[in-house]
Amino acid sequence: MTPLPRKLSAELIGTFWLVFGGCGSAIYAAAFPNVGIGLLGVALAFGLTVLTMAYAIGHISGCHLNPAVTLGLVAGGRHPANEALPYILAQVAGASLAAGTLYLIASGNAGFSLGDGPGAFATNGFGERSPGGYSMLACIVAEFVLTFMFLFIIMGATDKRAPAGFAPIAIGLGLTLIHLIGIPITNLSVNPARSTGPALFVGGDALIQLWMFWLVPIVGGVLGGITYRSLAASNSDS
Amino acid sequence: MTPLPRKLSAELIGTFWLVFGGCGSAIYAAAFPNVGIGLLGVALAFGLTVLTMAYAIGHISGCHLNPAVTLGLVAGGRHPANEALPYILAQVAGASLAAGTLYLIASGNAGFSLGDGPGAFATNGFGERSPGGYSMLACIVAEFVLTFMFLFIIMGATDKRAPAGFAPIAIGLGLTLIHLIGIPITNLSVNPARSTGPALFVGGDALIQLWMFWLVPIVGGVLGGITYRSLAASNSDS
Amino acid sequence: MTPLPRKLSAELIGTFWLVFGGCGSAIYAAAFPNVGIGLLGVALAFGLTVLTMAYAIGHISGCHLNPAVTLGLVAGGRHPANEALPYILAQVAGASLAAGTLYLIASGNAGFSLGDGPGAFATNGFGERSPGGYSMLACIVAEFVLTFMFLFIIMGATDKRAPAGFAPIAIGLGLTLIHLIGIPITNLSVNPARSTGPALFVGGDALIQLWMFWLVPIVGGVLGGITYRSLAASNSDS
Amino acid sequence: MTPLPRKLSAELIGTFWLVFGGCGSAIYAAAFPNVGIGLLGVALAFGLTVLTMAYAIGHISGCHLNPAVTLGLVAGGRHPANEALPYILAQVAGASLAAGTLYLIASGNAGFSLGDGPGAFATNGFGERSPGGYSMLACIVAEFVLTFMFLFIIMGATDKRAPAGFAPIAIGLGLTLIHLIGIPITNLSVNPARSTGPALFVGGDALIQLWMFWLVPIVGGVLGGITYRSLAASNSDS
Repeated sequence: MTPLPRKLSAELIGTFWLVFGGCGSAIYAAAFPNVGIGLLGVALAFGLTVLTMAYAIGHISGCHLNPAVTLGLVAGGRHPANEALPYILAQVAGASLAAGTLYLIASGNAGFSLGDGPGAFATNGFGERSPGGYSMLACIVAEFVLTFMFLFIIMGATDKRAPAGFAPIAIGLGLTLIHLIGIPITNLSVNPARSTGPALFVGGDALIQLWMFWLVPIVGGVLGGITYRSLAASNSDS
Repeated sequence: MTPLPRKLSAELIGTFWLVFGGCGSAIYAAAFPNVGIGLLGVALAFGLTVLTMAYAIGHISGCHLNPAVTLGLVAGGRHPANEALPYILAQVAGASLAAGTLYLIASGNAGFSLGDGPGAFATNGFGERSPGGYSMLACIVAEFVLTFMFLFIIMGATDKRAPAGFAPIAIGLGLTLIHLIGIPITNLSVNPARSTGPALFVGGDALIQLWMFWLVPIVGGVLGGITYRSLAASNSDS
Repeated sequence: MTPLPRKLSAELIGTFWLVFGGCGSAIYAAAFPNVGIGLLGVALAFGLTVLTMAYAIGHISGCHLNPAVTLGLVAGGRHPANEALPYILAQVAGASLAAGTLYLIASGNAGFSLGDGPGAFATNGFGERSPGGYSMLACIVAEFVLTFMFLFIIMGATDKRAPAGFAPIAIGLGLTLIHLIGIPITNLSVNPARSTGPALFVGGDALIQLWMFWLVPIVGGVLGGITYRSLAASNSDS
Repeated sequence: MTPLPRKLSAELIGTFWLVFGGCGSAIYAAAFPNVGIGLLGVALAFGLTVLTMAYAIGHISGCHLNPAVTLGLVAGGRHPANEALPYILAQVAGASLAAGTLYLIASGNAGFSLGDGPGAFATNGFGERSPGGYSMLACIVAEFVLTFMFLFIIMGATDKRAPAGFAPIAIGLGLTLIHLIGIPITNLSVNPARSTGPALFVGGDALIQLWMFWLVPIVGGVLGGITYRSLAASNSDS
């Protein structure tokens, strides 16, 4: 058994990496003139933060990096409930530290300003803060469905009947897929910690809208975990 | 043995994901201004829906998500014929549910209209409904060859002599490859259920052309399954 | 032991797939207006043809799909020399069949013409037929280095000391990498069969330059195979 | 035990490949008109050089290809210190040979000139040599964080508790991720040998700034190795 403080350190570093890599690619490289990586590059970056960390720290903490994942796995019977709160605190700390580091680097660019429009500093948003102009309802549906399916994939790919060792590929590239669908809608969260980091720096409406990016991914994740558990039956718990 | 209702639930959820993710990336993100994911992003998204689901539910239902796959595997001696019809019904139900959910989200965007031109709402089409203006014959040849090869790959990668655990990567990225070739031709189907979902919402010519996207992928898939079976001989059945 | 005719059928189908998928993505989708897959998509497509086929037929024929690979593996002590000629004939037949099928589909598009400039119908070329205007010497160096390294990777990744089952990923994505470097130089061959298929249809200078795309990849591949063999010593033969 | 000269040959060839492939894709293909691979393609190319080589020579030399990796692994207790200097010399030799080969090919293009601006001939730079105009401090922070995390991932993915065989995927795609974030900042190094090769040809300020691309990645890599080692505790050494 890995002691809890080591698990929390791993979750903090891992969530730092998710936000630093995913949001960093969006802030620095997505719209770089002529050769920018675009939303496809950002989607790949988010997924690869999880893929890399799942191989690096999966054996230490399980590599959740996301409060919706932690609570979904608790609901799915895969993680002890008493670790949920410390895990979530470590994740938010890592995400906030990442946002601060991203800000430190970005502010070294003469042309940088945080902004406060849709997607500014990689914040999530709905309605008038949706990158593609999607209504609050559309954004709620998208975040719900995508977090539900994310947990369904996580539960399935880590089922003991699934091929061993491949779960980080399925889960990481699953997060890439989720971003390929949903960046234009909410700038894509499915992860309350990831939403919180950049919002702390942008403030204003980005902070005000944060409730949705905690509530909906958690509800979607919990239901995704429960749904897989029911579908697969008790012999799939691992 | 997993009971049939659980297999069908898995096929329904899996095909929902294929259409929600693949068609959703096309509808929301492909042509997003300046940083859109393009056909490369859509091709990746379709492939990753299958890769992720194959790891998540492969051990439950085999993860067909496609009537042409189900019938190709029956023809290849890998799946019981008596499950084909319920599998196909579950797949069409999942695809239709996905199209409805995509519509719900898209209609939350003030600028959205379904349209009825080539590729509208991610529908498939040939002749005047082909995205790149390809004739019906060209479209039939493309869908035939690509579904034939898709089943050949599926049969080969799940052969018991192939390395265990890697089939979802080969099959998922195989579907990505298929889309890299064929989106300009038919908007790429190789999957009657995937074609049916969006066509139900667009109606008109999209529905009228649907016969081709049932007939040709199924014929191609069945022949692909039979061809691999003959080539590999009886000792490869798994 | 798989009988030779089955191996040759597998090589023919596999090389058909390499040319149909790789060249097809270039012909139909690379420059599709606004959302085209570009050279990145073409590079991914070529690599995925090999990745998918290596999982599908690796256990049947070894999945060479390329005369330079066959001869490099013979030189590296991994494949019997007496199978080289039939393998190469099957590869050229598959590549030619693919080029014919690509032509059949392409000619169903009202705006299609074969052309004869650099890269026309996915042909390879050097000097005035180089897509980016590279001299014959530069093209020879590039094809030599890239085929040398391709065989080095193939030999290493299939070494019995390398992790089992992963070679198709290393080799397929290795071919993607090779295309990311070299498409602007020669439209990238490293494969005499792949060069031959489209050249048969374009004719003229594309045919006249074909000697280079046989000679240089074979020399590079043979030296790559020998180099790995020397480096790794006898205990690595598998 | 592989004898040291064979390990050094493998490191030389592997680092040749990293610079030839990564920098070559940037020089020849990144900005190719209309269909260029962009920074996303370059990021993929760098990562795939490592992924392919890790499968090809991981069993020979460990496939470091990078002085910061070698010293980070020494600090993390994974590699003998007495091999560090010869490894680093072989890496710099391979990188320099690659830059020379890249120059040979590039100079076969009538329109080629080395240039000396930001990113010229794939050189790294900070301040006025930063592709996106980032200050020296921002560049130091970015290179530090990214090399720190690169070594953290390498240590974790090769931990004996991590799934066997997958480390090349995690590490290679980790390098892709790192490039997705940081090319606009420093043109991305995290590797002193990779920085040295092109700088030898461009000279001037590219050479003058080289100190930073030796100092910061090595400090970051060493601390990353130590951090993982502390976090994972002694039972994770492999």
